[in-house]
Amino acid sequence: MLTMDTLIYGLALVGAMVNAASGVLEAGRKRFDLFGMVVVALAAALGGGTLRDILLDRTVFWIAEQSYLIAALVAGVGTFILARLVRLPARLFLLPDALGLALFTVVGTQAAIAHGAPWLVASLMGVITGVFGGIVRDVLCNELPLVFRGELYATAAWLGALTLIVLPQLGVSPRLAALFAGATVLALRLLAMRYRWHLPSFSARR
Amino acid sequence: MLTMDTLIYGLALVGAMVNAASGVLEAGRKRFDLFGMVVVALAAALGGGTLRDILLDRTVFWIAEQSYLIAALVAGVGTFILARLVRLPARLFLLPDALGLALFTVVGTQAAIAHGAPWLVASLMGVITGVFGGIVRDVLCNELPLVFRGELYATAAWLGALTLIVLPQLGVSPRLAALFAGATVLALRLLAMRYRWHLPSFSARR
Amino acid sequence: MLTMDTLIYGLALVGAMVNAASGVLEAGRKRFDLFGMVVVALAAALGGGTLRDILLDRTVFWIAEQSYLIAALVAGVGTFILARLVRLPARLFLLPDALGLALFTVVGTQAAIAHGAPWLVASLMGVITGVFGGIVRDVLCNELPLVFRGELYATAAWLGALTLIVLPQLGVSPRLAALFAGATVLALRLLAMRYRWHLPSFSARR
Repeated sequence: MLTMDTLIYGLALVGAMVNAASGVLEAGRKRFDLFGMVVVALAAALGGGTLRDILLDRTVFWIAEQSYLIAALVAGVGTFILARLVRLPARLFLLPDALGLALFTVVGTQAAIAHGAPWLVASLMGVITGVFGGIVRDVLCNELPLVFRGELYATAAWLGALTLIVLPQLGVSPRLAALFAGATVLALRLLAMRYRWHLPSFSARR
Repeated sequence: MLTMDTLIYGLALVGAMVNAASGVLEAGRKRFDLFGMVVVALAAALGGGTLRDILLDRTVFWIAEQSYLIAALVAGVGTFILARLVRLPARLFLLPDALGLALFTVVGTQAAIAHGAPWLVASLMGVITGVFGGIVRDVLCNELPLVFRGELYATAAWLGALTLIVLPQLGVSPRLAALFAGATVLALRLLAMRYRWHLPSFSARR
Repeated sequence: MLTMDTLIYGLALVGAMVNAASGVLEAGRKRFDLFGMVVVALAAALGGGTLRDILLDRTVFWIAEQSYLIAALVAGVGTFILARLVRLPARLFLLPDALGLALFTVVGTQAAIAHGAPWLVASLMGVITGVFGGIVRDVLCNELPLVFRGELYATAAWLGALTLIVLPQLGVSPRLAALFAGATVLALRLLAMRYRWHLPSFSARR
């Protein structure tokens, strides 16, 4: 029987692993040493949830439960070995990044709801959990963060977080809502990359 | 009857709004998209108090009380609409910035005192609350933070924080001390901009 | 009688002072004003322990006990005066930096163990406490952080943290283990600088 806690734990574990992979794939294009590679992988995997837990004053998830740290290290090293055996396309890291965005947005929103946060705060926590690991990864790799590069990113996460909050009010089971919200983020993000969907860009001065 | 708590709540709410406005006015000169604009406004409005609450291990103020988040969003969007209707001078953001510095320094020092922090720590918390939102805003806009640009800024905040700590020891009511300390920061900062008051610049090597 | 708590308190106090000195020595090569100098000194002295305490949800050490803040200020100002009286070599800050790395790694690992963290997390906390103050200092001075410059740095801290964790399991007294672990970090770091020991640098793509 799949409980909500088990589902969230599994999603977060997979999220940590795909984000660690995205970190190694992006860092691999720079000449980082082994330590730098591990730092980028861990920052991508654990950054978003860490900021959420500090803001909510929860025990930081990877300190309470060491398995996230180990999973991120294993995924990072595994990706590193794979990348040395097989030639991987440079933009491949966008795939684990999109998957990590979807997983962490669901996990982060869920954690904030369980903590009793009001809905607007909960949806913002979902976005922060989803995007912050990728921001730290990109800053460490000296790349402009994906979230600021124009194609739908944080907006996709926010719509997914709202989906997760609204669906249970309409009678949908929380587990189904979580899966549907994750699929929404992933689909929106992949379509935004494919068809170059942008948020309107404004300037206060013409 | 104006209680201290109500006064501090009101000052913090106005502080969040003027800082959100300063964020939109500065971001308006860059070509941020709508999401980037909102991020800068929220970072300017909530950054200082968030760091203070994390350091003091208090519940983060905008998570405990959603009205700050909503006020910052409303002020940010309102400023954005205003800036599209009326041509505003480029340096206008310095005014809400100075007002936000004064308000948040008072609120931050007061919160640290109420938390039982010793006086030196409390005055430092006031400075951090006052300046940190503006630092994050300037970094996101890729500008050198105002606080490092030479004219009195953190020093003005620190003198105001000390005023707030010393006056009640001399028999002044806490409410009057709060208003006087805020006026001190605002006056010092505006005069420093007008007359280019600098802190001496040292170099360890001649 | 030297208790473990007194030893750790003393090591952390000395760590804060040497890190403040390293901050002033590095900032002295740029034209920071007095406020900027103090900010760099405090960030170097208090940054690592602050991040550790926030992650572990402990009371931040310099807020609980004001003496660290005062010691860092005194050491920073003292270094500043010394640097104006005597011509100091530019690379001198590497010495207090290495000493601070050793001291803070021991203090940070010890604090995490006392907090009940599992061993892998505790060793990571030691590394974070050891390196983070120097990272913030270097970023504020607009220098590439030492930890990313190639010579053994975080690795030295990590080996020291593991020493501190393993030795008591083998029957060594905690106090002796702390002194030995600190000496390990300091020796590894000094030798790495002298003989240019590097971690292998990998690239995912040949």
